[in-house]
Amino acid sequence: MLIGTGGTIKADLLIEGEKIVATGQEMDVPDAEIIDASGKFVMPGGIDPHTHFDLPMFDTVCSDDHYTGLKAAAFGGTTTVIDFVPQDHPTLQESIDAWHEKADLKATVDFSFHMNITRLDENIISEIPRLIDEGIASVKVFTAYNDRLRLQDGEILKVMRLCSKHSILTMMHAENGDVIEVLTADALAAGHTEPIWHAYTRPAWGAVESVLRGIALAEQANASLYIVHVNTAGGLDQIRYGQARGLPVMGETCPQYLFFTEEYLERPDGAKWICSPPLRKEEDNEALWDGLVDGGLQTIGTDHCPFFFDGTRAIEYEGEWIAIPGKELGSEDFTKIPNGLPGVGDRLPIMWTYGVGKGRLTPNQFVALTSTNPAKIFGLYPQKGALLPGSDADIVIWDPHRPLKYGLAHAHHRTDYNLYEGWELVGYPEKVFLRGQIIVDDEQWFGRAGMGRYIMRQPTGGVI
Amino acid sequence: MLIGTGGTIKADLLIEGEKIVATGQEMDVPDAEIIDASGKFVMPGGIDPHTHFDLPMFDTVCSDDHYTGLKAAAFGGTTTVIDFVPQDHPTLQESIDAWHEKADLKATVDFSFHMNITRLDENIISEIPRLIDEGIASVKVFTAYNDRLRLQDGEILKVMRLCSKHSILTMMHAENGDVIEVLTADALAAGHTEPIWHAYTRPAWGAVESVLRGIALAEQANASLYIVHVNTAGGLDQIRYGQARGLPVMGETCPQYLFFTEEYLERPDGAKWICSPPLRKEEDNEALWDGLVDGGLQTIGTDHCPFFFDGTRAIEYEGEWIAIPGKELGSEDFTKIPNGLPGVGDRLPIMWTYGVGKGRLTPNQFVALTSTNPAKIFGLYPQKGALLPGSDADIVIWDPHRPLKYGLAHAHHRTDYNLYEGWELVGYPEKVFLRGQIIVDDEQWFGRAGMGRYIMRQPTGGVI
Amino acid sequence: MLIGTGGTIKADLLIEGEKIVATGQEMDVPDAEIIDASGKFVMPGGIDPHTHFDLPMFDTVCSDDHYTGLKAAAFGGTTTVIDFVPQDHPTLQESIDAWHEKADLKATVDFSFHMNITRLDENIISEIPRLIDEGIASVKVFTAYNDRLRLQDGEILKVMRLCSKHSILTMMHAENGDVIEVLTADALAAGHTEPIWHAYTRPAWGAVESVLRGIALAEQANASLYIVHVNTAGGLDQIRYGQARGLPVMGETCPQYLFFTEEYLERPDGAKWICSPPLRKEEDNEALWDGLVDGGLQTIGTDHCPFFFDGTRAIEYEGEWIAIPGKELGSEDFTKIPNGLPGVGDRLPIMWTYGVGKGRLTPNQFVALTSTNPAKIFGLYPQKGALLPGSDADIVIWDPHRPLKYGLAHAHHRTDYNLYEGWELVGYPEKVFLRGQIIVDDEQWFGRAGMGRYIMRQPTGGVI
Amino acid sequence: MLIGTGGTIKADLLIEGEKIVATGQEMDVPDAEIIDASGKFVMPGGIDPHTHFDLPMFDTVCSDDHYTGLKAAAFGGTTTVIDFVPQDHPTLQESIDAWHEKADLKATVDFSFHMNITRLDENIISEIPRLIDEGIASVKVFTAYNDRLRLQDGEILKVMRLCSKHSILTMMHAENGDVIEVLTADALAAGHTEPIWHAYTRPAWGAVESVLRGIALAEQANASLYIVHVNTAGGLDQIRYGQARGLPVMGETCPQYLFFTEEYLERPDGAKWICSPPLRKEEDNEALWDGLVDGGLQTIGTDHCPFFFDGTRAIEYEGEWIAIPGKELGSEDFTKIPNGLPGVGDRLPIMWTYGVGKGRLTPNQFVALTSTNPAKIFGLYPQKGALLPGSDADIVIWDPHRPLKYGLAHAHHRTDYNLYEGWELVGYPEKVFLRGQIIVDDEQWFGRAGMGRYIMRQPTGGVI
Repeated sequence: MLIGTGGTIKADLLIEGEKIVATGQEMDVPDAEIIDASGKFVMPGGIDPHTHFDLPMFDTVCSDDHYTGLKAAAFGGTTTVIDFVPQDHPTLQESIDAWHEKADLKATVDFSFHMNITRLDENIISEIPRLIDEGIASVKVFTAYNDRLRLQDGEILKVMRLCSKHSILTMMHAENGDVIEVLTADALAAGHTEPIWHAYTRPAWGAVESVLRGIALAEQANASLYIVHVNTAGGLDQIRYGQARGLPVMGETCPQYLFFTEEYLERPDGAKWICSPPLRKEEDNEALWDGLVDGGLQTIGTDHCPFFFDGTRAIEYEGEWIAIPGKELGSEDFTKIPNGLPGVGDRLPIMWTYGVGKGRLTPNQFVALTSTNPAKIFGLYPQKGALLPGSDADIVIWDPHRPLKYGLAHAHHRTDYNLYEGWELVGYPEKVFLRGQIIVDDEQWFGRAGMGRYIMRQPTGGVI
Repeated sequence: MLIGTGGTIKADLLIEGEKIVATGQEMDVPDAEIIDASGKFVMPGGIDPHTHFDLPMFDTVCSDDHYTGLKAAAFGGTTTVIDFVPQDHPTLQESIDAWHEKADLKATVDFSFHMNITRLDENIISEIPRLIDEGIASVKVFTAYNDRLRLQDGEILKVMRLCSKHSILTMMHAENGDVIEVLTADALAAGHTEPIWHAYTRPAWGAVESVLRGIALAEQANASLYIVHVNTAGGLDQIRYGQARGLPVMGETCPQYLFFTEEYLERPDGAKWICSPPLRKEEDNEALWDGLVDGGLQTIGTDHCPFFFDGTRAIEYEGEWIAIPGKELGSEDFTKIPNGLPGVGDRLPIMWTYGVGKGRLTPNQFVALTSTNPAKIFGLYPQKGALLPGSDADIVIWDPHRPLKYGLAHAHHRTDYNLYEGWELVGYPEKVFLRGQIIVDDEQWFGRAGMGRYIMRQPTGGVI
Repeated sequence: MLIGTGGTIKADLLIEGEKIVATGQEMDVPDAEIIDASGKFVMPGGIDPHTHFDLPMFDTVCSDDHYTGLKAAAFGGTTTVIDFVPQDHPTLQESIDAWHEKADLKATVDFSFHMNITRLDENIISEIPRLIDEGIASVKVFTAYNDRLRLQDGEILKVMRLCSKHSILTMMHAENGDVIEVLTADALAAGHTEPIWHAYTRPAWGAVESVLRGIALAEQANASLYIVHVNTAGGLDQIRYGQARGLPVMGETCPQYLFFTEEYLERPDGAKWICSPPLRKEEDNEALWDGLVDGGLQTIGTDHCPFFFDGTRAIEYEGEWIAIPGKELGSEDFTKIPNGLPGVGDRLPIMWTYGVGKGRLTPNQFVALTSTNPAKIFGLYPQKGALLPGSDADIVIWDPHRPLKYGLAHAHHRTDYNLYEGWELVGYPEKVFLRGQIIVDDEQWFGRAGMGRYIMRQPTGGVI
Repeated sequence: MLIGTGGTIKADLLIEGEKIVATGQEMDVPDAEIIDASGKFVMPGGIDPHTHFDLPMFDTVCSDDHYTGLKAAAFGGTTTVIDFVPQDHPTLQESIDAWHEKADLKATVDFSFHMNITRLDENIISEIPRLIDEGIASVKVFTAYNDRLRLQDGEILKVMRLCSKHSILTMMHAENGDVIEVLTADALAAGHTEPIWHAYTRPAWGAVESVLRGIALAEQANASLYIVHVNTAGGLDQIRYGQARGLPVMGETCPQYLFFTEEYLERPDGAKWICSPPLRKEEDNEALWDGLVDGGLQTIGTDHCPFFFDGTRAIEYEGEWIAIPGKELGSEDFTKIPNGLPGVGDRLPIMWTYGVGKGRLTPNQFVALTSTNPAKIFGLYPQKGALLPGSDADIVIWDPHRPLKYGLAHAHHRTDYNLYEGWELVGYPEKVFLRGQIIVDDEQWFGRAGMGRYIMRQPTGGVI
């Protein structure tokens, strides 16, 4: 059965070179090599709209680079990732160039870039429309991380207006930077160092209000808005409030916000679950599941940004022993724990078993949330996210019946832990193709560094 | 550009006989006849999920039968209609047979049936699962029309449970029959006879509460629910209330509820706008537009059920002079005005100009609301509602630039008025194909009675 | 400190005979007897707007009559109850007369009547306006209890319109009778007999929808509406939905819906918690607390209707051994368990400790919800529910510091169990006055049968 | 009939000196002077919780000082105003002292102060708890007026936490300062100068989001919050969102937001309606009325801050010819139009006729919204806002039947226009007493400068 063709149909795909050239019934093409997928689902490769690779943070760097991370993505059935370019250089162009330098020769699946806008001046304003020439059709702004990543509301309004004019989509990290700043200073002053204080100092209501703030700014700017990593029921309430008033607001959540709660931060190994925004409560988990089903939320990303839990101990990766400073950096101070979780490879298998398998999502919704919608929103469609004539032959043959005890052994992230260690899965990628070439066959890896291609995206304004 | 393939792509369609067999890029098929659609949109034919033809009402019958009505549909770009079978005979089977007798030899486009359940007993209960053998995968129940069409809540619950068990979708006409009964008796007793009293005696809050009532019953029955012809902002509020709690509730609206208000009933020719549920207020119009955009509502039907405004004066139709008693029957008593409006042919042209043309809907949303979603919900997909390999070659070539002053002259409904008389349109069907055969080419008609085929539908449970 | 004067003030009350004649500061009235209430709260006696005494049910009668029940009320600080008159006789007048016969000679505190309307015909319609002559300014209708107490929606609409015209307030028991009928028949057919099936067969969504149905009918009738014993978060959602649209909708909840859940029905003694509508979930408890605070709900009643848990074993009451068939009647069949709980005496002590003591309610809110609001809504104000010149001298001197281990020993209900057995309280009535006469002094009883007076109420339309 | 005693009762008031000492029925007090109020309502004097007198703005000052403005208040039935002290001096103490200097010798009715906090540092933080010694129990913060009055979110959080700790109530002016800054700069750059641009540059969504932002900050600070001058339906939505989640959020609106819309700004004399936040749309008017009725909003203030429409032409006031630069200052530039409207004297008469007279408010709600609730929220109760023993004898005898064509001739504001010019009223103050002394008798003025007393307020935390 083919999914990602607008529905689930029984048909053949004809691939020529990198492309799907036709879909048809009982096509009889002389000399074609035949791959039999009876009993399996054939889907467009997953698209992770929210990843970070090789990202410097605090005094270290996240433990996956564009080779290891994209390889892990591929094993999990994801063939395109959209990575965030930090605005680390004087110009956007230099920042982008630097990111290409990291990614281009290493990438093992296709990738594209979002641009973070974390500092605004006239030069940057003049550069934004030119992002399109770089194939970048989306920018992210932050209402949090005072003095580091945050833009002021007026600056965000200006970015949104400019983006709206050029059909570039604005994405937003919605937390209240001021609240976090005040609470963090207080917590440290009071001598609190444990991971749970990460959650206490980034309270849920700060996310709720800043979602609405983003919506209000977008309304004023006549812009579409994509809220990244929605983690609270209240944030979703406000997204729905905007949608019900006719505003083009979209929301993404991530698997970690569907399965885990603040209580994990209270474990001895709580640092493993440190991410921003933080995990919340069970009722938030439940509300976000509802949002995936009823259309309040449009996509599932990962915010993949892994660190070692214990960066003092090396692990083996492709024959090398690797150790990268990680979560232990914050063992005496929760503010020094690198923020982020592994996830790019876990996304599809986990969501299949716990979404489709548990009857919460249909196979079509699964593909829509993890591939087709990201493609449409971010200007990759129908090149990616679809099995249509003209689409790239990024294809996953998914075995819906394969049982697996998941964990570090199967996830190929370069880190020393997995959030879903020991979870029992049913359903897993069997074969993964990137533009017509097989890169994963069961447990075997046929990909190679540099075969992933940078994808120029079209500005769409992001409305689906 | 092809729409209805999951997106909008530039590609060719290969048709063999009645079917699309492939979609591909620059396909080179020897001997194929080529139809050039450059500069046009190529879409799956419209599917009207809510029509009435040849329906007896009061002392007359609606003025379109399955020949004239389906021909009008075709001219408007609609190639499939789903007609309601009234439960007019002792058994469902006899009712269905009677409806086939009316439709089968006349139909000019494809059609399927919904079954009305307006009387429940053990025999009917035993017949419901067998509807599937008749290709009927959806039933409609009414909370209004006391002593005529209404089921009691307990009966509706039973129907829903049974349907849920067999993946048959329950549709509901949601008004409060008791309120209408009381108010109507009062109005007549007070000597009120004008059309506006139709609206006064079927108040909006009655629809709002019965939508929630339907949702509550469906929740209890673990059933999906499709609310037909949503006409109030409050009804949509309640649909959203259900959806936000994770319930599979869907809503349909009709063009008349997007453009007209109660005030039309106060005109001297107010009877023209008599339908049930009635037209409401401007804020309801606006709210329903929002619902189409944000996903609160899934489909646009028509509830096509036309009558002559003045059935004493004949009009010419295919060379014959036709006069059928109509709205004038109620000139002395609003309760005797036949309820219903023409619309099956107006739907696509009107929604294109006022939806897509005004920037309220994208072309993809237009196709989803008028074709793909009805197909998915009602078990026709991907045979209908899609341009996919294996789909029926029901195709509309849509000229997005054609200007037209619309009205009775263009609509092919067999009646003496059109709701949109004189409206200026831009965009209109240029060619319409039914299973590979051209039936409309500009103003020319190539269809014929009986070429429309009855489509057996699959039970899907109706969730999209 | 006086509460119930519009606020909390330090002042003296001057009582002459049955009345408060003045409130003043340091009043110097010769010959007045002085009662020192320093350090205590002085409040108007509680008003329980929802009680049943001597009510026949199934093959028994509730275990409190108008002597024992009103005495229990008095010990709990309640000096007025409003009891429901069942429509058990051909005319309303006869039904009322019969109820006076039960109550008048036994009553130990003041009382008034609501009239149940559970059967409607022209005679009853003509009697309704005359209820005012009987001092009855409120009627209750039921959407549940098919073939027993339920009115059809159209009948309810007629009652509401008539009541609205005469400023009589309509109260509604909101559950879906049809759903209950169907589910109960199924449960019995499947052999389910345990108490928990009482909850399963009266599902929460049935209450949610019927609240909105009541609101819709009231809107149409231009009537005020008072929803009795709101037990679900969703019902409160819908009350707020109505209120936010400017409709005069009010809601009552009862202590049992704030503290207990369905899970109690699964205990071996689950029958003790059988009431209608049933107890629900913890999130419903929480939502209802919020409603008390934010004004979504206006009153706290009890729906007092006690039965013996084991009516085969006698208990002593004022020296007599009493045994009345009770919950054991349904030991083999949950539908035969008499529905109802003791509570009239528990209300104020429990709500003080768990409302005021826990910081959820202020003392003013406590008095408003349990006395002033019921008085205003039901036409007793300012005769009752206030400490104002002209008010009846129904006064409670409340000791906010008294600790007490509560339970059957303190509650004076004539039954063999108490819902709050062993709960630790802080705060309890010290002295209770009925129209100037002391009736409770600490643990001592000075009341007597017949001293309670029937209070004629004024029609107010119920808006506060 | 007495209102403001917790209800409406028929009783006498006994006044000794400045105080009500008793309320009673047919009190027979030797030597007492008797004022007959039969057929009238006797109410506590109005309390305007939101006024500005003698406030410098741009290059002028508002046209009422504490003599003329409080006299106008008195004629309109208001006997207490709470005026905002701008933080215009290095210390709060100096700012307060300066404001006493303006007010103390001029005040003709009682008054109290709120403190604006528009600049925060360690010294100010240390002064805030001492506000209580100055009788100031409430502070106002602004999210708008960048670089002038705005605090950053983190500063607001700190103010709220401090206030919460000391039971001082935080009030908030909720608009988005950044949005206004950006839009205003753009409008001026584009050469827009007309009054309507005041509305365009302060958009509604900015108020909506900042209301929720305030709520989120208050939740984090565990503080109560009072949103001043709510002007949008959306702001009220968000207040209700907070309230429904159990948060102590209150809202005030003003008459101008109930009656007028943006369209007034498009009139040639549009500057007359310039205030901040601006007038909005009819649906906002309607929603705010609903909020007054259903408890979403607690108070009606005025934000009185009048200016001359044409400050170049003098008017006569108490025999003097007065001209103060006003709205004409902005005739070439909307940003230079002084912001503010007259209203302190209009409030009660306008709200009586259009609230009580139109059946939208009961007399009790009228008194609650305009007197009792402000008294309770701001720590004046029961000294003010009530007719209880111990209350100040601030009394209005209100003639509910007096017809009046209202306007400049009746309002005693010192300005040259009235918003309600020519409106037909029914109901007007007949006599006004301040602490036992008559100050207004029909059209006659018996007050004098300095007889108004500064009222020390108690910190209450503001919860009602």
